[in-house]
Amino acid sequence: MSLTPNYRPADQAQLENFGVDWVVHYEFEDLDISKAIDEFESLLHDLHEANLETQVRPGHGASLLVFIRVPRAHLGNLVHQSRVKDWMYGIIHELPAGDEGTIVTAETPAEALRSVYHAVTWKQSLGGAHITPRHGKWKNIASAFPLHDQEANAELLRKWSRTILLTAEDLDSIRALFGEKVAFYFAFIQSYSSFLVFPAGWGIVSWWYWGSYSIPFAIGNCLWAIVFVEYWKIRETDLALRWQVNGVGVLKVTRAKYVWEKEIRDPNTGEIVQYFSPYRQFLRQLLLVPFASVASLALGGLIVVTFVLEVFISEVYTGSLKGYLEFLPTVIFSLFLPSISGLLTSIATRLTKYENYRTQDQYDVAQTTKQFVMHFITAFLPTALTAFVYVPFGAKLIPHLSLATLRGESPDLTRDFHIDAGRLKQEVIYLSLTGQVLDFGQEVVLPYVKQIALQKWRAYREQQATHRYKRRVSQATNQVLFDDPDESAFLTRVRNEAEAEEYNVHEDTLEMCVQFGYLTLFGASWPLVALGFLVNNWLELRGDFFKLSLEYQRPPPIRSDSIGPSLQGLEVLGWLGALSTAAIVYVYRDGMSEIRVSSLLLTLLLAEWAYLAMRFAVSTGLRKILSGTLQREAAKRYAMRKGYLEATSSSEGSPRGKLRVRFRDRVSVYTSATDPPSPQSDEMLHEPTLDSERRFWSGTSVLDDGVRIIRALGKTSQKTEKEL
Amino acid sequence: MSLTPNYRPADQAQLENFGVDWVVHYEFEDLDISKAIDEFESLLHDLHEANLETQVRPGHGASLLVFIRVPRAHLGNLVHQSRVKDWMYGIIHELPAGDEGTIVTAETPAEALRSVYHAVTWKQSLGGAHITPRHGKWKNIASAFPLHDQEANAELLRKWSRTILLTAEDLDSIRALFGEKVAFYFAFIQSYSSFLVFPAGWGIVSWWYWGSYSIPFAIGNCLWAIVFVEYWKIRETDLALRWQVNGVGVLKVTRAKYVWEKEIRDPNTGEIVQYFSPYRQFLRQLLLVPFASVASLALGGLIVVTFVLEVFISEVYTGSLKGYLEFLPTVIFSLFLPSISGLLTSIATRLTKYENYRTQDQYDVAQTTKQFVMHFITAFLPTALTAFVYVPFGAKLIPHLSLATLRGESPDLTRDFHIDAGRLKQEVIYLSLTGQVLDFGQEVVLPYVKQIALQKWRAYREQQATHRYKRRVSQATNQVLFDDPDESAFLTRVRNEAEAEEYNVHEDTLEMCVQFGYLTLFGASWPLVALGFLVNNWLELRGDFFKLSLEYQRPPPIRSDSIGPSLQGLEVLGWLGALSTAAIVYVYRDGMSEIRVSSLLLTLLLAEWAYLAMRFAVSTGLRKILSGTLQREAAKRYAMRKGYLEATSSSEGSPRGKLRVRFRDRVSVYTSATDPPSPQSDEMLHEPTLDSERRFWSGTSVLDDGVRIIRALGKTSQKTEKEL
Repeated sequence: MSLTPNYRPADQAQLENFGVDWVVHYEFEDLDISKAIDEFESLLHDLHEANLETQVRPGHGASLLVFIRVPRAHLGNLVHQSRVKDWMYGIIHELPAGDEGTIVTAETPAEALRSVYHAVTWKQSLGGAHITPRHGKWKNIASAFPLHDQEANAELLRKWSRTILLTAEDLDSIRALFGEKVAFYFAFIQSYSSFLVFPAGWGIVSWWYWGSYSIPFAIGNCLWAIVFVEYWKIRETDLALRWQVNGVGVLKVTRAKYVWEKEIRDPNTGEIVQYFSPYRQFLRQLLLVPFASVASLALGGLIVVTFVLEVFISEVYTGSLKGYLEFLPTVIFSLFLPSISGLLTSIATRLTKYENYRTQDQYDVAQTTKQFVMHFITAFLPTALTAFVYVPFGAKLIPHLSLATLRGESPDLTRDFHIDAGRLKQEVIYLSLTGQVLDFGQEVVLPYVKQIALQKWRAYREQQATHRYKRRVSQATNQVLFDDPDESAFLTRVRNEAEAEEYNVHEDTLEMCVQFGYLTLFGASWPLVALGFLVNNWLELRGDFFKLSLEYQRPPPIRSDSIGPSLQGLEVLGWLGALSTAAIVYVYRDGMSEIRVSSLLLTLLLAEWAYLAMRFAVSTGLRKILSGTLQREAAKRYAMRKGYLEATSSSEGSPRGKLRVRFRDRVSVYTSATDPPSPQSDEMLHEPTLDSERRFWSGTSVLDDGVRIIRALGKTSQKTEKEL
Repeated sequence: MSLTPNYRPADQAQLENFGVDWVVHYEFEDLDISKAIDEFESLLHDLHEANLETQVRPGHGASLLVFIRVPRAHLGNLVHQSRVKDWMYGIIHELPAGDEGTIVTAETPAEALRSVYHAVTWKQSLGGAHITPRHGKWKNIASAFPLHDQEANAELLRKWSRTILLTAEDLDSIRALFGEKVAFYFAFIQSYSSFLVFPAGWGIVSWWYWGSYSIPFAIGNCLWAIVFVEYWKIRETDLALRWQVNGVGVLKVTRAKYVWEKEIRDPNTGEIVQYFSPYRQFLRQLLLVPFASVASLALGGLIVVTFVLEVFISEVYTGSLKGYLEFLPTVIFSLFLPSISGLLTSIATRLTKYENYRTQDQYDVAQTTKQFVMHFITAFLPTALTAFVYVPFGAKLIPHLSLATLRGESPDLTRDFHIDAGRLKQEVIYLSLTGQVLDFGQEVVLPYVKQIALQKWRAYREQQATHRYKRRVSQATNQVLFDDPDESAFLTRVRNEAEAEEYNVHEDTLEMCVQFGYLTLFGASWPLVALGFLVNNWLELRGDFFKLSLEYQRPPPIRSDSIGPSLQGLEVLGWLGALSTAAIVYVYRDGMSEIRVSSLLLTLLLAEWAYLAMRFAVSTGLRKILSGTLQREAAKRYAMRKGYLEATSSSEGSPRGKLRVRFRDRVSVYTSATDPPSPQSDEMLHEPTLDSERRFWSGTSVLDDGVRIIRALGKTSQKTEKEL
């Protein structure tokens, strides 16, 4: 096994997905064998009820991998039905041609996989198998996920390593592979990074001519932030229309944990609708206010205490071990932060559950918003304290921190304390250079190394276990327990993917928002900060895709029509940025010679008014100039309706056959040309033709195989535990 | 003739519109008779080309009234075509059933009249007669307008005089009579007046317990303003969906004066589209900035000078005639204001023309925005000067205004000047009580009296003219020149309507915005101000409708999906209101004992943040709670699409016959039950049956009649002019 086990795979077998659409990872480590067999039988039964084909193989440890394949004809019909549903909910405007039994080809792998996802997870009443990992009946299912398309991922990474900017086709490819939710993140980081060119260039000019804290850079930077946020709003709508996901939130299914007050029959549709008073939900949401206050106070208080202790030690304390003690408060804070964050997050989760959202989307948005608030506090408060408390007022405050004060004596105010006025700049430089590199290492490199190490250790352990128990199982069990040489590489990869974590796109988006925040809030103190971010983001974008394709399970291709609550975060940061920049420039520009509160307040007030006026002007202007897509969209709809009208009025046949006009702008999937017929390619209606694949799916009895594996591995692991 | 000639008409004949759909008022006072005859022939030709029936009668003075009737079958087809066009542009979502020749019944009189309006005004290429009053070829056409529905108007007024609040059906009736643009104004004043109940009640409580400048009232008032603006935004969308006009701006026709850079063929629709670079338009719009600055400076400077002079005379001047001289500056300002406003308006009009908008709607919005800015300055600046300059700083500034200063001597600062701290409150009381009553008189009563007087004078004059020229015209001319007794009352009414002015709904909306502004900006200084406004608005609403139905021409029933630029005005006023209220409360609450600039600035900054935070919270909360209509709309669309799907999949016949599902919530037109068959009633497909009406339309030759009238009146008036 090489150090890059999955990247640039050596042989063709590793590329194949054996026609597998979805994998369910069932763990029975802590279960009675008979209970496990019951659950497994029930699982197979539910899957077969939903018209899904299954195959089974052993997983790592006491676990099963249930492979799911949707028959091609059934999948084609599911895709068609999904499109009809889109039309019914007004996501697309023209009814797809065909009737109930129509079979169509998915436009993208993501579209096909989304239908598979629905077939696996939706309720029985909606035609799915209702497999809900780690919830209710299926709490022993660790995960259910699609398999990565190795070749397509690798090709995209190879391509991007040679280019600077992502093109629109690249974004379409990400959408085709991972769905719109993920694609929106990459579209965002791409737009944001391209926009960074301006503050980076202007920063170099400003730094050269005026140095830090210059008014021209401050104004340019704030204007840039406004323009970027307003541009992104338009760009988002633009992409949502291009990808046909505008308003897609309405057709999301109800969460399993949704509680409703009553069921009412909608007078218009005649459907049964679950009703929960929006007024009550709003009241519950108001609990956010005390929560945010408490969280801010707790986190803020902790940060302030740490900060004070650090200053106290570094400036006042003169005892032994000073060099080490200086770092002690920060170290202690860092140690406590995870548990405090964890506590706050668990409160936030309980709040979000109590708020009782109907769809998973809404739930995610509410939860993410709360996490954003907490992240923003931990990310920005320390630097803000440095900028607006420590440096300007340090000389007055620090004497009160002396030991004399602690002993109740009046402080010695005559001593001259040394306040490092460059500390803000140093912190900002650290954030934009060292911090970014460390983050990248922590986020991408470290997990990868850990993953490789874990795989090696597991391979070693399994080899030992295999040797030990080889003799004691029957021939039939032996057959299912040990990998066929053909499948060996494939199964190894699937087992690794099953162990991988789920990808949360909001975390990556949040990271970019925090970066944007550093730039708008504190960029004025060191104009080169944007240059650092620009360089970092070239790597970040590729690193994130690398991470997504190799360190995480492939996410279900969920649709979305925006980057979610981050947009509001960006707006708030743009506004705070204007205030913060004005304050920094006012306080620091003249070497802090003379700070008058009334002038500072006037500066803030004027900065705020300028911000509001500019935002209005920029938003109006941009909407006017960039209205192209919206107009094109309207023109297209007009053309379609006109065509429909002409078609139906000239002949009296059924118009539905002529109706099929799709917004198929362009969809290029890099895999379709070179790959073996994968389930996502254009030939998805044909049966798989590869020998190994046919053999993979031709197992005699899935049920028996699974039971044998459970018996063998269930025993095995129990014994191993006893031995250890 | 009674003093209320049109209100509660005495006989049935005055109620009838003789099946007239539209009236064109052609004036030939300043024309050669031959030229006038040519133009008249051309007018008749164009109208007949557009399939319109005509009749002609003499107007007041040297003018003709050309009556237009659209054949019922043609009108029904126009209405259908208009609906199909709505569908093509995405205003409605389901295609109306039928083919090119389908004839339908208009849902409301306004819908029918809108089609008539299009038939009269649209270009020949669009199937209209292209009659453009006072423009181009038709500069001698003074106006073209539909006739009022007397009975319906009177019934609505009668009903409202007995009720306090307008209901949703009342708004629907206004929409049915005058179209959505006017209905939106009445919906706005109704919502606003209902909302006024809160500040009125809270004002009474506050006034009783805390008097003026109280913090509780200030907070309540600002919150109320935020809630109202956010509520109205939702209500507007709500009504736009209910009335099916959401996004109606896109299908408006191109203005006659629109200039385009090039014509391009739209790649999607294949239609020829006129293109004018939006970027260039935006650059031209930026001229608004210098214009607004100059206008603000000019108006503001004038107001300041007037203010200073007034203060100077009242506080410093001690000579003779002081009692009269005090008012001199205000009188001079009032005399100059119209010409200055006129100059600024003409500059604004030129700017708007230069900005080159494609549709009349966009043009109106741009022009109205500019007028709003000017109105706001003249309305609010004087009171703002009193509140924030005169009262707090008067004691320091006024000594500099003494005669000594004018003579170059240093002012006598030892004298104690008496500054009336209650002046702000007095001004606000004046604005909310006296000012509103005076405005109402000026706006509704005075024009009405003038109108009656003019009618009486004209009747007297015409009677004399008739006596003098009776002998000299031929028998045939005599027949067309003098009113048939049956038609006499009707024609008198039409002549009066032809002389009436065009109604501009934006002016009434602006008046309400100014009122809202007074309340948010200065309400804190006298809590009872809202009570005064509430009482005033009960009368205002009815007065406006009275004015609209008796003093103005019936406006063409134009569609619109909002109250236009006033919404932005309201938002700005809400924001300024928070700042102004905070400042007033801070400055005045403690009797102006101690004003510190830094505390004032801090108060402003905190007020602004509170405003922004509250606006976000209120907008989020309201959107959540009031999302009912939007959801119902989505549910209806879903139900329709589902129904369509079921209908087309069960049978294979043409689905278009089943497709006709309309959002016909409820449309009650008060006229339909009691009226004779007017062109708008449900029997509009039948020919009119009344004898007098048949006789009216059975004139032998419209062309000959018109030429005779022109000859007779053209001569007549020329002779009269010579004689006078």
